[in-house]
Amino acid sequence: MGPGKADLLEAIDTSGSISAAAKQMGMSYRRAWELVDVMNKSFKQPLVSSSPGGQHGGGAQLTEFGYLILKTYRDLVVKAAIATNAEFELINAYLNLPE
Amino acid sequence: MGPGKADLLEAIDTSGSISAAAKQMGMSYRRAWELVDVMNKSFKQPLVSSSPGGQHGGGAQLTEFGYLILKTYRDLVVKAAIATNAEFELINAYLNLPE
Repeated sequence: MGPGKADLLEAIDTSGSISAAAKQMGMSYRRAWELVDVMNKSFKQPLVSSSPGGQHGGGAQLTEFGYLILKTYRDLVVKAAIATNAEFELINAYLNLPE
Repeated sequence: MGPGKADLLEAIDTSGSISAAAKQMGMSYRRAWELVDVMNKSFKQPLVSSSPGGQHGGGAQLTEFGYLILKTYRDLVVKAAIATNAEFELINAYLNLPE
């Protein structure tokens, strides 16, 4: 899991299909499909279930397991950000940021 | 900052030169020098100071500021790992890990 895959899961959840999610994220249908395939194969249970139909597949939705992993990943990011806020701020304060 | 740059800073600290640190990390002197240059330019103060000398430069050491940033980065990683342990364990438990 990472930010791109988490966003893709959310887009599938919102749009109800892999092709609509791909369009929403500005990526090719093939790329979105591959990312879903990698996620489904990386875990012991699928995160996305899709129904066949048409050239670009039918609908797709998150499984209960997909929701669990997505929520857990989002929680992880938030908790990491909270826990490291002081260190992040210190490093940031000394960075040469673009104007 | 990231794991590779932090390790490079530590190797420079241990070895006392960019070329020895590069060798220790299995990277080219040129690559190590570039990473140091990027770090020194990314921050408002240099993290590494080096003395001229020879084809591959003379000695190099972390500045006080370099130690501060390195320690802060290491603290950040540890705190993030502690704060996200439960989420990390959950995701990990469901991953198909290589045998």
